[in-house]
Amino acid sequence: MQGVLDIPFELASLQELLAQSLPRVETVFAEQLVSDLPPVDEMCQHIERYRGKMLRPTLAILCGIAANPKSDTLIAHKELDQLITPAHIISGAVCEMVHMATLVHDDVLDEAEIRRHGQTINMLKGNEVSVILGDYLIASSYELCSSLNSPIPSQIVGNASAIMCTGELLQLHNRDNLSMDESTYIEILERKTAALIGAACELGTLATLGYDQSNNPVTHALKSFGQYLGIAFQIQDDVLDLLGTEKDVGKSVGKDLEKGKLTFPVIHHLENIGVTDGTRSLMMLQKAASGDRSVFPEITKAIRVTDSVKATQTLAHIYVQKAKDALVDIPESAAKSMLELIADAVVNRSF
Amino acid sequence: MQGVLDIPFELASLQELLAQSLPRVETVFAEQLVSDLPPVDEMCQHIERYRGKMLRPTLAILCGIAANPKSDTLIAHKELDQLITPAHIISGAVCEMVHMATLVHDDVLDEAEIRRHGQTINMLKGNEVSVILGDYLIASSYELCSSLNSPIPSQIVGNASAIMCTGELLQLHNRDNLSMDESTYIEILERKTAALIGAACELGTLATLGYDQSNNPVTHALKSFGQYLGIAFQIQDDVLDLLGTEKDVGKSVGKDLEKGKLTFPVIHHLENIGVTDGTRSLMMLQKAASGDRSVFPEITKAIRVTDSVKATQTLAHIYVQKAKDALVDIPESAAKSMLELIADAVVNRSF
Repeated sequence: MQGVLDIPFELASLQELLAQSLPRVETVFAEQLVSDLPPVDEMCQHIERYRGKMLRPTLAILCGIAANPKSDTLIAHKELDQLITPAHIISGAVCEMVHMATLVHDDVLDEAEIRRHGQTINMLKGNEVSVILGDYLIASSYELCSSLNSPIPSQIVGNASAIMCTGELLQLHNRDNLSMDESTYIEILERKTAALIGAACELGTLATLGYDQSNNPVTHALKSFGQYLGIAFQIQDDVLDLLGTEKDVGKSVGKDLEKGKLTFPVIHHLENIGVTDGTRSLMMLQKAASGDRSVFPEITKAIRVTDSVKATQTLAHIYVQKAKDALVDIPESAAKSMLELIADAVVNRSF
Repeated sequence: MQGVLDIPFELASLQELLAQSLPRVETVFAEQLVSDLPPVDEMCQHIERYRGKMLRPTLAILCGIAANPKSDTLIAHKELDQLITPAHIISGAVCEMVHMATLVHDDVLDEAEIRRHGQTINMLKGNEVSVILGDYLIASSYELCSSLNSPIPSQIVGNASAIMCTGELLQLHNRDNLSMDESTYIEILERKTAALIGAACELGTLATLGYDQSNNPVTHALKSFGQYLGIAFQIQDDVLDLLGTEKDVGKSVGKDLEKGKLTFPVIHHLENIGVTDGTRSLMMLQKAASGDRSVFPEITKAIRVTDSVKATQTLAHIYVQKAKDALVDIPESAAKSMLELIADAVVNRSF
């Protein structure tokens, strides 16, 4: 997330620490995926190109730091090994790997062609390889997770992954449902995005507090922070799919319209357009969902008429605020400030 | 596997015990998949129809019993709670769930229409739902596995699942490779089938011996038994795909030829046919792989000319023997006898 953050001077040491830690996550990630089979290895190397913002590892590490009451002192004294342990690094790599697995499978479902400015695996190698490669990433993430010497992280990651799938299934179930409402939309987001981001925050926190601290209020707070942040993040992702360009976003856009997935701007638009113009909007949405991309400009224009983009941004900001509010009882620290900065940044990004 | 076993009288008590235990596996399995979302629940109920031979749970439980030096006495005295604990049942359910996930994803890859005499999920609900449903099964299996109160089972299952995926990837990499040799074929089987069956045996054994007993010779022996049995099982599966009927086998057949996947009968045939007739065989295999099922009868006829079915059966029997040999240092017991019976049965089945 660092590219989108305007880091104030007092957080420079923490930022440096993060900059040192994320390559450690990448190393653990790559080492876990090494295979004795050259074709498997080759594909995993392609997959590593998918790594982008590293949001989940960043949050796992930052929550681990924020959960340490002595974090600012440890940073000042450069006692970094006490602050960031292999468990924090592994937690970050596990969540990133689960996330990457969902990207690979999502690209199959969405028939996406572009991801992180490069061709998707499904385009390069076909859907079959993509399905199995996604499975390989999931399996590898669990194997890595089991190295954390407690079954609790495996329970957290298994549970979050299962919830993610139910979110995807709920979304598929509501495909082409042009009367889907806001609460169903938020439930989909809670499941398909927020659960894993919450799990990343929880794993990072428990790596500091110990795996018997699931019920510690600090754990609850940082996990909630991640869940609310995840919702805000996905709302923004959905805006970018609707209004962004492939060049800016770095992946195929317009996929939600094309796949008949209603996201908040469209839901808000349909709820506010009125009957006469609404019929026209519904018709255009049906056309888009049947693969006719020529109606996209008209749809985005219509959405602006009802101020639905602004309403979506307002909704995203509400969840950013909920995320920050969840941190209220966490002692002030550089890490807490950085988490708050990230919360703001997820809704102010164009990629 | 019970339908294919001719159980001698002295194993009747053990058989009864198994008959009581497998429904417990089914209950744990179903309870883990319960979702608060009706569409998810509905699909999981369809999935439960996929359950067939319950080979992996049967082996997990039997290995757990065989690893108990007092098993025969405990069976005689009906002290069954000491013999089969929740950990054995959970181990069986976990492996069956991973297996089921691979069936769901395999059916997507194979574009299969029939499984256990019913329509596949991909046919009923589309590939997208099938991919996510498979993911849900994998995630749920890991979550269930983490309830075993040690990270070791998660490590075993994660590792076996990752190996399975590399086997599938190796197979995809060799698609349409008409010069694939026996050793590559066996490596694919070791990875895609034997790893999980070995893991089922290992998990069952460790549920008896304790999770710190991975290096116990008994664990090694029973795990090896499972791995060899897995190879024999898959060789027979490949024979059934080639020569069986959909009615007998209960699932789509001829998929390997259609997908350009060389299995042992074909490999043996091509190695023994000679150059002149070999050219004709290669041509027919290419036709089959391009979707022309009309050449199937000619291919199966050609394969019999080189005695390749018999050679395949011989190969399967070699692995059955290796499986039995792995048990040599396991003390005699009803459970050991039953494992040996199952080893024979996997290659003598027509479904």
